Formats: sequence, structure tokens, C-alpha cells
Amino acid sequence: MSLSRKRLKQGLVQVYFGRGKGKTTAAIGQGVRATGHGFKVYMIQFMKGNYKYGEIKTIKKIPNFNLKQFGSPELISEPSKFDKDKGKKALDFAKEIIMSDDYDIVILDEIGVAISMNVITVEPVLELIKNKPDKVELILTGGPNMHPKIKEVADLVTEMKMIKHYYSSQGITARYGIEY
Amino acid sequence: MSLSRKRLKQGLVQVYFGRGKGKTTAAIGQGVRATGHGFKVYMIQFMKGNYKYGEIKTIKKIPNFNLKQFGSPELISEPSKFDKDKGKKALDFAKEIIMSDDYDIVILDEIGVAISMNVITVEPVLELIKNKPDKVELILTGGPNMHPKIKEVADLVTEMKMIKHYYSSQGITARYGIEY
Repeated sequence: MSLSRKRLKQGLVQVYFGRGKGKTTAAIGQGVRATGHGFKVYMIQFMKGNYKYGEIKTIKKIPNFNLKQFGSPELISEPSKFDKDKGKKALDFAKEIIMSDDYDIVILDEIGVAISMNVITVEPVLELIKNKPDKVELILTGGPNMHPKIKEVADLVTEMKMIKHYYSSQGITARYGIEY
Repeated sequence: MSLSRKRLKQGLVQVYFGRGKGKTTAAIGQGVRATGHGFKVYMIQFMKGNYKYGEIKTIKKIPNFNLKQFGSPELISEPSKFDKDKGKKALDFAKEIIMSDDYDIVILDEIGVAISMNVITVEPVLELIKNKPDKVELILTGGPNMHPKIKEVADLVTEMKMIKHYYSSQGITARYGIEY
């Protein structure tokens, strides 16, 4: 790490959850904004083990924007040993990236879903938040819910509230280029 | 326009508004996802006439992701003739881009703010939505509010609800790399 590289003055903890569309995309957009100013971003995706997402291809082209996926392509109901193992690997990797102090923004995408579905427990996530280096910003996204203890320690929490969604009102399912 | 280029099956209308953080970033993230699959995106920013935003630098590097700003760097209270003129230019440009059918996703960033602040009226925006080509997706972002007539005609509406924000709880103002 170069001592002269640009750093955030203060790294905070942002949380995005809710039933509405816009959680992962908001985290990606935040990464786009930060890399534009030369900050270094690492997005670690829990619960996503496939490469169909359009953002992966674009992010690869963006300097200082890194992405790594952990998890099964699909998780139906109960997590298997494989799912939990992937969850642990994702957490270990997140810890390594955060504690290295080499990245300004670390996005833990879908970590709220991983907690809700018992793929990981909330305690090590709270530890990570507590022990993160001062200048590292954390962004945690979830699904419909986020564990209350995480919301409590976060500096910013936005609920993406579903006012209307074509999924329920028009029966339109996930679209290529839009939802993935 | 090449007849063989990839198109969305169906272009819908997405709306993001609310007091919480994550509206413009969600629109940017959506653009990142779509360009990854080869779709063409145009982001037209109302009410933003300066170049301090980090996303501008990154978006310039992303193939098929275009961005154009219209507006004053700062709008304090009442819109001036200059502001209204910029608003009209932004609308005219948006119409040209949308009706060309050359872009798959057109983002009208901060258009909700432009309407709320009387920089533009809602009627031409409703006309744009009504007359857009079938395969063009529109994404409209606003501020705390979005005009009810726009929410009514939209296919998807997410309210970014501010549950907690360091701005109000900790008095931390806009941060370089994070809010701009």
C-alpha cells in the first residue's frame, strides 16, 4: 500500500435492505462513484455463485473495482453444508480484504440474506464492523430484511420500500439486463 | 441502428424517490448491469451542472454508457430563467434520445426534483413516458418526492426510505467519493 494514496476521511457503515428493487444496484453505483475519484472498491457477493449478472462484465472493466462471488447458483430453502461452507469462505475473505486496509470501500452484497437464511451467523459480521480500519467504508446489502443488530450499529440505513413492482402487479419475472 | 442489435423484450418505467440515500446510485448500478450484457444506456442528469461527481469519470470509461448533464451547479430556491431554460433543454434532449430508439435504457436523473422545484412541468414528462418506444426502459429518479402522476403510470416504484442517515444523526455532510 502506498502511503500517499487517497483515502476517505472517515469510513462509515451503510446498509440497504427492503422488498424494493435497487439494493445491489445502489451498492454498485456507489462503487462507480468512488472509483471515479480513484478510491479502491471490493465487492464481495454472498449467495451468488453464478456469472450471469451483467454487472460482472462491466465491473471487470472498471479500474480499482474488484468483485468476487461466493455461494451456490441457487439456494432454495435450507442451507446445505456446501452453502454454509461458502458463507464461511466469503466471511473469511471479507475479513482479509477489510483488515488489509488496502480498499476504501468494501461491499458485502447479499450478506443480509446470508444471515436471514442461516448461511452465516450475525456475530462475526458485527465483529467485522466493530474492528474495521477507520478509513474503510462498509456497504452491506440484504434482502427484505436486515438483522436488527446490524441496523443498530450502521451509520446509514436505507429501506428500499416496494411501492409498486411489475413482478407482483404484472407478473413480469426477472429480466435479462435489468434484474441480472 | 443495426436491426440485429440486442434489445430488451419489453421496456418498462422504473421510479426511485425518497429521503434515503441510494437513488442515483441505483440508477447507475442498473446502467452498469445492462451495459454488461451489451445494452445501450443514456443517463441524462437534470439539475446537475457541474462535474465534481465521481461517477462521471467512471461512466466515461464504460462502453455504451453515456451521460449528459443539464443545469446549474447550484439551485438555491426559486428557479431562474437560466434554470428553466436548462430544464427545457434537458427535456428536449431526453425526448430526442428516447424517441431515437437507439438506447435501451434512458435514465432521467433528478427529474423528480426538477418537477418539484418547478424547473419543468410534469405534463411533457408524462407525454414522454406515454410515447416512448416499446423496448426502451425509462428510469426516473427524484428527491424526497415524485409527482403522483408519474408514480401512477410507472411499472415499478421504489421509495428509498431513510431509516438512519449520518447526515442527521452525526452531522456528517456530503463526502467526496461517497455522496459525489
